[in-house]
Amino acid sequence: MDSQQIRYLLTELQQGNLSVEDALTKIGTGSEKTVSTEAAQVDIDRKKRCGFPEVIYAEGKTTQAILEIIEILNSRKENILATRVSPEQAEQVCKTYPSAIHNQIARTIRIENQAEEKKQGIIAVITAGTSDLPIAEEAIETLKWMHCEVKTICDVGVAGPHRLGEHLDVIQNCDAVVVIAGMEGALPSVVGGWVDSPVIAVPTSVGYGASFGGISALLGMLNSCASNVTVVNIDSGFKGGYVAGLIAKRSNR
Amino acid sequence: MDSQQIRYLLTELQQGNLSVEDALTKIGTGSEKTVSTEAAQVDIDRKKRCGFPEVIYAEGKTTQAILEIIEILNSRKENILATRVSPEQAEQVCKTYPSAIHNQIARTIRIENQAEEKKQGIIAVITAGTSDLPIAEEAIETLKWMHCEVKTICDVGVAGPHRLGEHLDVIQNCDAVVVIAGMEGALPSVVGGWVDSPVIAVPTSVGYGASFGGISALLGMLNSCASNVTVVNIDSGFKGGYVAGLIAKRSNR
Amino acid sequence: MDSQQIRYLLTELQQGNLSVEDALTKIGTGSEKTVSTEAAQVDIDRKKRCGFPEVIYAEGKTTQAILEIIEILNSRKENILATRVSPEQAEQVCKTYPSAIHNQIARTIRIENQAEEKKQGIIAVITAGTSDLPIAEEAIETLKWMHCEVKTICDVGVAGPHRLGEHLDVIQNCDAVVVIAGMEGALPSVVGGWVDSPVIAVPTSVGYGASFGGISALLGMLNSCASNVTVVNIDSGFKGGYVAGLIAKRSNR
Amino acid sequence: MDSQQIRYLLTELQQGNLSVEDALTKIGTGSEKTVSTEAAQVDIDRKKRCGFPEVIYAEGKTTQAILEIIEILNSRKENILATRVSPEQAEQVCKTYPSAIHNQIARTIRIENQAEEKKQGIIAVITAGTSDLPIAEEAIETLKWMHCEVKTICDVGVAGPHRLGEHLDVIQNCDAVVVIAGMEGALPSVVGGWVDSPVIAVPTSVGYGASFGGISALLGMLNSCASNVTVVNIDSGFKGGYVAGLIAKRSNR
Amino acid sequence: MDSQQIRYLLTELQQGNLSVEDALTKIGTGSEKTVSTEAAQVDIDRKKRCGFPEVIYAEGKTTQAILEIIEILNSRKENILATRVSPEQAEQVCKTYPSAIHNQIARTIRIENQAEEKKQGIIAVITAGTSDLPIAEEAIETLKWMHCEVKTICDVGVAGPHRLGEHLDVIQNCDAVVVIAGMEGALPSVVGGWVDSPVIAVPTSVGYGASFGGISALLGMLNSCASNVTVVNIDSGFKGGYVAGLIAKRSNR
Amino acid sequence: MDSQQIRYLLTELQQGNLSVEDALTKIGTGSEKTVSTEAAQVDIDRKKRCGFPEVIYAEGKTTQAILEIIEILNSRKENILATRVSPEQAEQVCKTYPSAIHNQIARTIRIENQAEEKKQGIIAVITAGTSDLPIAEEAIETLKWMHCEVKTICDVGVAGPHRLGEHLDVIQNCDAVVVIAGMEGALPSVVGGWVDSPVIAVPTSVGYGASFGGISALLGMLNSCASNVTVVNIDSGFKGGYVAGLIAKRSNR
Amino acid sequence: MDSQQIRYLLTELQQGNLSVEDALTKIGTGSEKTVSTEAAQVDIDRKKRCGFPEVIYAEGKTTQAILEIIEILNSRKENILATRVSPEQAEQVCKTYPSAIHNQIARTIRIENQAEEKKQGIIAVITAGTSDLPIAEEAIETLKWMHCEVKTICDVGVAGPHRLGEHLDVIQNCDAVVVIAGMEGALPSVVGGWVDSPVIAVPTSVGYGASFGGISALLGMLNSCASNVTVVNIDSGFKGGYVAGLIAKRSNR
Amino acid sequence: MDSQQIRYLLTELQQGNLSVEDALTKIGTGSEKTVSTEAAQVDIDRKKRCGFPEVIYAEGKTTQAILEIIEILNSRKENILATRVSPEQAEQVCKTYPSAIHNQIARTIRIENQAEEKKQGIIAVITAGTSDLPIAEEAIETLKWMHCEVKTICDVGVAGPHRLGEHLDVIQNCDAVVVIAGMEGALPSVVGGWVDSPVIAVPTSVGYGASFGGISALLGMLNSCASNVTVVNIDSGFKGGYVAGLIAKRSNR
Repeated sequence: MDSQQIRYLLTELQQGNLSVEDALTKIGTGSEKTVSTEAAQVDIDRKKRCGFPEVIYAEGKTTQAILEIIEILNSRKENILATRVSPEQAEQVCKTYPSAIHNQIARTIRIENQAEEKKQGIIAVITAGTSDLPIAEEAIETLKWMHCEVKTICDVGVAGPHRLGEHLDVIQNCDAVVVIAGMEGALPSVVGGWVDSPVIAVPTSVGYGASFGGISALLGMLNSCASNVTVVNIDSGFKGGYVAGLIAKRSNR
Repeated sequence: MDSQQIRYLLTELQQGNLSVEDALTKIGTGSEKTVSTEAAQVDIDRKKRCGFPEVIYAEGKTTQAILEIIEILNSRKENILATRVSPEQAEQVCKTYPSAIHNQIARTIRIENQAEEKKQGIIAVITAGTSDLPIAEEAIETLKWMHCEVKTICDVGVAGPHRLGEHLDVIQNCDAVVVIAGMEGALPSVVGGWVDSPVIAVPTSVGYGASFGGISALLGMLNSCASNVTVVNIDSGFKGGYVAGLIAKRSNR
Repeated sequence: MDSQQIRYLLTELQQGNLSVEDALTKIGTGSEKTVSTEAAQVDIDRKKRCGFPEVIYAEGKTTQAILEIIEILNSRKENILATRVSPEQAEQVCKTYPSAIHNQIARTIRIENQAEEKKQGIIAVITAGTSDLPIAEEAIETLKWMHCEVKTICDVGVAGPHRLGEHLDVIQNCDAVVVIAGMEGALPSVVGGWVDSPVIAVPTSVGYGASFGGISALLGMLNSCASNVTVVNIDSGFKGGYVAGLIAKRSNR
Repeated sequence: MDSQQIRYLLTELQQGNLSVEDALTKIGTGSEKTVSTEAAQVDIDRKKRCGFPEVIYAEGKTTQAILEIIEILNSRKENILATRVSPEQAEQVCKTYPSAIHNQIARTIRIENQAEEKKQGIIAVITAGTSDLPIAEEAIETLKWMHCEVKTICDVGVAGPHRLGEHLDVIQNCDAVVVIAGMEGALPSVVGGWVDSPVIAVPTSVGYGASFGGISALLGMLNSCASNVTVVNIDSGFKGGYVAGLIAKRSNR
Repeated sequence: MDSQQIRYLLTELQQGNLSVEDALTKIGTGSEKTVSTEAAQVDIDRKKRCGFPEVIYAEGKTTQAILEIIEILNSRKENILATRVSPEQAEQVCKTYPSAIHNQIARTIRIENQAEEKKQGIIAVITAGTSDLPIAEEAIETLKWMHCEVKTICDVGVAGPHRLGEHLDVIQNCDAVVVIAGMEGALPSVVGGWVDSPVIAVPTSVGYGASFGGISALLGMLNSCASNVTVVNIDSGFKGGYVAGLIAKRSNR
Repeated sequence: MDSQQIRYLLTELQQGNLSVEDALTKIGTGSEKTVSTEAAQVDIDRKKRCGFPEVIYAEGKTTQAILEIIEILNSRKENILATRVSPEQAEQVCKTYPSAIHNQIARTIRIENQAEEKKQGIIAVITAGTSDLPIAEEAIETLKWMHCEVKTICDVGVAGPHRLGEHLDVIQNCDAVVVIAGMEGALPSVVGGWVDSPVIAVPTSVGYGASFGGISALLGMLNSCASNVTVVNIDSGFKGGYVAGLIAKRSNR
Repeated sequence: MDSQQIRYLLTELQQGNLSVEDALTKIGTGSEKTVSTEAAQVDIDRKKRCGFPEVIYAEGKTTQAILEIIEILNSRKENILATRVSPEQAEQVCKTYPSAIHNQIARTIRIENQAEEKKQGIIAVITAGTSDLPIAEEAIETLKWMHCEVKTICDVGVAGPHRLGEHLDVIQNCDAVVVIAGMEGALPSVVGGWVDSPVIAVPTSVGYGASFGGISALLGMLNSCASNVTVVNIDSGFKGGYVAGLIAKRSNR
Repeated sequence: MDSQQIRYLLTELQQGNLSVEDALTKIGTGSEKTVSTEAAQVDIDRKKRCGFPEVIYAEGKTTQAILEIIEILNSRKENILATRVSPEQAEQVCKTYPSAIHNQIARTIRIENQAEEKKQGIIAVITAGTSDLPIAEEAIETLKWMHCEVKTICDVGVAGPHRLGEHLDVIQNCDAVVVIAGMEGALPSVVGGWVDSPVIAVPTSVGYGASFGGISALLGMLNSCASNVTVVNIDSGFKGGYVAGLIAKRSNR
C-alpha cells in the first residue's frame, strides 16, 4: 500500500466514510499476524499470504516448543505438518494429539483438521534408487497435507534404462514431477527430456566417497541440460513436494 | 509403452485391424525425431515431448553450426531462441535472418515464426540490483519467446526494505516469480514470504571476494527458509524464465 | 508501529485531534522514500534510517546509471561516495562534477556537499604489507566521507615484529582499528591483543598459490584467537572503513 | 615505547631522578604479566591492554587446567567467563565455586567478583529461528559478564516479514545489534537496512544439506549488501556478544 | 532399432513372414526386463546388456528388500554379489542362504549358482598400505564373482621403493592392474610407468588431516602423469575390480 | 629382479658362463633408457615397458625443447604424438617436419613413422554436446596414433533421449567406449547401462556457473551408478583415448 | 648406480677382483631389504637409506599386524616408534613388551633398544594453546626416539603477545623450531620473524566453525609471510618432530 | 628479556656499573631496526634476527617503492634478492643498478654486495617435469643468494622410474633436497624414501583440469607417506630454496 493510497484512506476516515476497524483491516495490521510462545513467534498470517500455514521444522526445537506451536495452529483448525521430527518428539506429540499421523520413514507428523477437499492436481514422485525412499516419503507426506494426488515410482535410476520407460505414460500426465536421486543425480535430466511439466529435482545424500553428502547430485542437477529442471536443497523432500504442490494447485484452480 | 501393449498392437496388425503406418505412429518411432547436421543432432521431437522446441545454447558452437540448426528449426516454422550468443555469432545470424531479434544485454536471439497467441499467464521478474540486469534480460527474452506476459521490477534488494513493499500488489498477482540476485542472494527468501506462487531463484555472479562467482548467492537460495523457493544454475536467466513460463502456461490452460 | 499504535492514531484522526498529514508522517509513509531512475531505485530514506546516504557500488553499472544516481543525491545536497569506479566511469563523472575527488588507487569518487563538521572520532587503518594499499585507500576515502580522523600505518606485518610495536601508542588511542592483510591474515590477531577497541579485519586477495584469492586470510581472521576481531568481505576496504566509522561516530556523540 | 623514550628514561634513572621501580613500571615490564599453571600461561595483563580479563575457552582443556586458571583469576577478583564448557567440566567448577552461574544452553560459566556497575549501553540480540537459541544465549552471557543491557528478540526470520517489523523501535535504539542466523543467513542484511548502528552477524550451523555446517550462512553474511554488517566465526555467540559489548561500552563512556 | 527397421519388421509381420512372438523379441520388449519387489525394480535384463547381472548395493536397503532381490536373482540361477553389507544384513542372508559366502573385511556376500568356468584373465590387486586392505578385499571378491584370477600384492607404497620392484614380474603379466591407495595416492602413477596394461586406480579414505577423506588421493590419481591410469570413486573396491574384470574377460575371449 | 636372481647371475658371470654384456642386459641397465636434451630426459625405454613411446605434453615447454624431443623420437622411428600444442609451437614443428599432422581443434601433432598396421580393435567416442568436440578430437587423434578404429557419435546428450538409442548397435560392438560430457556429466551412466565393455568417462569444462570448470561433470562421473564407468582428468581427451586404446589393443591380440 | 658403474663392477667380478658377495653388496641388493609378515612388508633397509628405521602407523592396522612388525624390528634391536596407537592396541603391546613406553596423550609407543647416545641437537616445541598439547606430545615422543633434546613452550598464542617474548632466548638457540597451532595458525609466522633456524609448522584441528578441522590453520601457515616456515599435515606432530630432528641431527654431526 | 633481567640491568645502571648506551643495547632497542620509505618500513634488523636480510616481494609494489627499498639495503652493503619481479620492474632496477642480475625465467633480481664466501653446503633441486623449471629457477637464485652449492636435476617424474635412479648418488649426498612438482605431486614421496635429509616439497600450478592450480600437488605432498617431507606454498620456489639453504648453512657451521 503506497502513501497515496494511505492518504486517501485516512481522508475517508477523517470524513466519516470509513470506520477505524475497516481502516485497520485495509492497512493490513488490524488483525493479528503473530502469536508468540515462549520459544517462537508463530506466523498465523502465513496462509493468507502464501496459501498454506506455517510448517514446523522440528530439528533443534524442544518438544515443549513444538507442542506450543501445534496448539496455536490446532486452535485455528489449520492442517498441521511437522518435518524432521525425532522419535522422541513424535511420541510426545502423538500422545497429546491422538489423531496425529506419524510417518517414521519420512520423519513427519500430520494433523488433519479440515475435511479433505477434492485432490488438487497430480504429482509424480520418482526415485533413482531404493535408498532415496525416506526423502520421497517426506515429499509424499507434504503433498498429502496439500491435498494433492501422488503417483510414486521408485528405483528407476539411469543404469537400467528401460525401467523409466515403463512408466512414461503416468509421468507425462502429471502437473509437476519430483525427481529424487543421490550419487550422480542424473535422473532429473533424463526425466526432463520426456515431459512438458516442471521437474523439481531433490538431491539426496545417498552415496559414498566423492558423493560428498549430496554435493555431487546437487551439482549434477543444477547443471542439467534439460531446461525444465529446478533444484532444492539436499535431502529436502519437503521443499520438492511443496513447490510441486503449489504448481499443481495453481494448475487446477 | 509396455510389452503387453506392444503385443496387443502387433496382434492387431497381424489380423489386419491396423495399418503399418498407424502401428508405427502408436509405437512412436514412425515419425522422424532427429535431424542431423554436420555438427549437431537436432531434436525435432522436443516440442511434442516438452512443449517447446529445442533452444540453441550458442557458447562453444561455431557460427556455421548455429546457422545449420536455425535453418532446420526455421524450415519447420518453429519459434527460435538462442542464448549466450556472442556479438560475432549474432551479426552473422542477423545478416542471414533479418527478422531475428538480437538482445545485446541478454546475449539472445529470437526468431518469431508463429503469430503471437494470447499471453500465457503473468510472470514477475525481479532483481536485487542493477548489475543483475543482463540475467534478467535473458529471463525476459525467454518468457517472450514462450508468449508470457512479464512484469519487471529492478533494484529492490533487501538493504532498502521499503522498495520491495511498493511492488507487492503486482508480485502477488503473478503465476510465478523469478528472483535474480547476486552477493548474499537474500531476496528470494524475502519475496517467498509474501507470495503463494512458486519462486524461481536465479543466483548471479555479481559481487566480489567471498561471493566466489555466485556460490554465495547459490547457497543462500538453496537454504532459503521460505518453502516455495527453488533454484537454477548461477547466471541462468534462461532456466529461471523457462520454468516460470512452464508454470504460467500450465496455470492458464 | 504495531496495530495497537495505529488504532490509537486512527482514532485520534477520526476525532479530529490529528491532521491527515501528521498521521501520514507518524505512520511513516507520508514522505517519499524512493526516487526511481531508468536503471535504479535510489533509497533516499537511507540516511534517516542508517545515518549515512546510499553509497554507489559502480561495478557493473553503466556510466549513465551512475550519473543519474549522483544527480538525485546531489540535488539533495548529500555527501556522495562511489566505490569500485573504473577509470572510464571516473572520467565522465569528473567531467560533469568538477568538484568530484577521484582517488585512482582506491577506485573511489567523493563529492562533498556539506561543510565538514568536527571530526567524528579517530580510526587507525593498518596494513600488513605495501600491496594492501589499494584496499587501505578505499577504507580511508570512506572514513573521510564520514568525517572521521584517520591514522594510517602501513607495512607492519608480523614477520618484522618490532614494526607494529613502534606504533602502539597511536593505535591504542583510537575508537576502532581497521586491519588490512592478505596472505595468512595474521595481523588482526596480533593487533587485537594490544587494544581495547573493536578490530575490523579486512582480508585482501594479496598473495599467490594457497592464498586462493583471499580465502586464506579470510579464514585466518574468522578464526582469530583475539576476542575483539570481526571480519568483512575480501578486499572490502569500504565495509572495513564504514563499520569503523559508525563505531567512532557513536563513541563521540 | 621507542628507543628515544627509553634512552630518556635510562638517563633519568642514571641521574637519580627516577627509582628503579618507577622505571620498570614505565617500561611496562615491572609488573608481572603472566602467571603460569601446569597447563597454561594466564595473561593477567589482558584487562589493562584490552579492557576485559582473559576468557577461558574450555573445549579441549582438562578440568584441572580450567580450575587452575579460574583460581588465578579469582584470586585477583576478576569477573570470570568460561565458554564451551562441557557438563562434566561445569559440574566440577560449580562444586568448587558455588557462586558460579552455569548456563546449560549457552555452555557457559560466569563468576561475578565485582559488584555490578551501571549497565554499559544496550545491545539487541536477534535470532532468525528458535534453533539459533544456544548461540544467542552464549552472546547474552558474554554481554552480562560485560555488564551490558540486552534486548533479546527471537524467531524473526525473513520468511515471516512482519515479525521483525514489530520490534524495530527497540532495535533502532541500541548501541549495536547482534544478529544470529543459520541456513541462508539473510537476516543481518535486512536488519542492517533498518539501523544506524553496527550489526555483528553470527552465522550458525543450523540447517541441513547445502548449509554445510554454517558455510552458507557465513558466506551470505560476508556478502551482505548492507554496509554496516561485520561477521564473526560460525557459532561464535561469544565473539558476537564481545564485539557488540566493546562498542556499547565505548559509546557510553 | 530405428524407425526404418521397425517399419520393415511390421511389414514382415503384416505379410505373415514373422510371428508376433518373434517380432516382440526383435523389438526387444518381448521378454520381461524388470521384476518388481515391494522396494525395488530388479533389472533382470542387465546380464544380456552388460555381461553380468545386477549387483546389490546393500547400504540403505532394508534386509527384507535385500532378501527379495536375492530371491529373484537366485531363482534365475545368477551368481549373486552384494556389497557394503552390514553385519546384521549378512547374518540374515546367510541364515536364509547357507551357501552364501560372507567376507567380513570386504563387507560382501557372494552366492555361486553356476559352476566356475575357466578363469577369465589375470588381475593384479595392489595396495599401498595395510590399511587399504578392506577396499582390496572388495575388489578381490568382485573379481572372484567374475571368475577372474587375482594376484594380491599388499603394502608396497612408494616410501619403500624396492618393495614394488620385487613384484614387477607378476604385475607386468596381468591383463589389468587395480591399484588401491590412500594418503597422497602416488602408487598408481609409479605402477603405471612399469606396465602396458590399464591401471584402475582406487583412492581410499585412509589417512588423516589434509587427506580429507580420500580427496587428496583422488586428485593425485586424476592428475597422474602416467597415461594409462583411470580412476573410480573413493573406497570403491567394487568398481575397481569390476572394470578390471571386464578388461580381463574381453582380453581372453 | 630379486637378490636371489642377481646372485645366480653374478655366479654365472664369475664362472664364465655369461658375458658381461649379457649380464648387463639381463640386469636391465645394459641398454640406455634415457636420452637427455637441454630441457628434458626422454624416456626411450617407455615403449618396451608400456607398449607405446613417450607422448609430448607441449604446454609450458619451449618450442626448442619440443623440437629436441621430437628429434630423438624421430631418429628412432617412433610414431610421435604431442598434445596441448599451441599454434606457435605447431607452426615451428610443421616447418621442421613437413609430414607432421596438426589437428587445430584437438591441439595435437602426430608424425607417422611406421607403416600403419591392421587396426587394433574398435572404440566408440561419444559426446554429449557439440561443445565437447575439441576433447573428442584429442581422443580420436590419440586413437589414430595407436592404430585403433574409431566410431564417432556426437551430440547425443540425455535431454534428447532417443538420440543415443539410434546408435546403440554401433556402440554395443566396440571394445571400449569413451564418453565425453560437460555440465552434469550424466551421459556415461546412461551409456554404461547399455554396454558390456568398459566406459572411459572424460569430464569437460563445458558449461557455466555451477559447472565449476568441469568439477560438476567429474563428480557426476565418479558417482556413476553404472558399474563399468571409470574416469580420467577434466578435459583429458588424451587419457580417455589412451586407456580405451590399451583395452582395444589387448582385446585384439 | 648407473650402467657404466655396473659394467665396471661386472668386469671386476669376471676378472676375479671381486667376490660375488661383495658385488651383491655394492649393487645393493645383496642384503635383504624387506621382511614380509602376514599383513605387511617391513622395510628393514629404511634406516640405511633414511637414517631411522620404519615407524609404525597404527591406525587401521590390527593389533596382530602391529605385534608382528614390532617383533621384526625388535629382533634387529631397532629403537621402535608407533604412532596413532589406540588404547586397546597399546594395552596388548605393553603386555607383550613390558619395556614399551606408552604416552596416552600422544597416542604413541616407544621401545628403546639401543642405549641413548649423546643428545643430537636442541629442538623447541611450541604450542599456541593448551588444546594443542596432544600434537605437541607426539612431536616430543618422536624427538625422544631420535635422541634429540627438546625445549617445550606451551600456550604462547599471539593474543597475549608478551608470552612468546619471555621465551625468545631459549627459542633462538635451537637447531629447529616446531610450532603447533590451530584456529588461525598465526604463531609460526610470528616465531619465524625471531629466529634464524627453520620453523616446522604443524596445523591442528583445534577450533570450531570456520576452522574446518584445521584447514584454516593449514592455509595460514602455507601463506606465512616469514620465509623460514614449512608446513606438514594437519595434526601431524610426528612429521613436525621428525623433520626437526633430521635438521638437528645433521647440524650436530 | 624478562622483568627480572631488566630490573637487574636498571639497578646496574643506577649504580653506575653500566652506561646508558650499553643498557640500551642490552634491552635491544638502542639500535634502529626499521627504516621507513614512502611506501614501506624496511626491517634492517632482520639479518641479525633471522640470518639473512629482508627479501623484496615485488608483486603489487610500484617500481619506485622497490627502488627505495633496494637503496636502503644497498647502502648497508647487503646482498639483495627480489622475487616475482615483472619485466618492467626489472628493466628499471637494472638501469639503476647495472650490477643487478636479472633471471627472466625465475623472475628474480640479485645484487651481490659481499664477496662470495665459501659455499654453505649442497642442495639438490629436482623437478618432475620441464614445465616446473621457472619455480626451480627461483629456488636456485635464492640458494645462490644464500651462497649454497646447487645440484639441479630436471624432468625425473615418477612415470619414467629409472630416471630418478640415475641421480641417486648425487641426491643422497646433499644437506637438503628441494623437490618441485605439479600434477599429482608424487615425486617428493619417492625421493623421500631414498634420502636421510629433509625434503622440501614445492607444489606447482603445472597441470590442467583437476590439478586446480596446484591444489592437487599440494595435498599430495602434505599427505606424503615419507616422514621427511615438508611443504611450502604453491609455486614458492623462493621458500623451498630458502628453507633448504637455512638447513645447509646450519649443517655446515
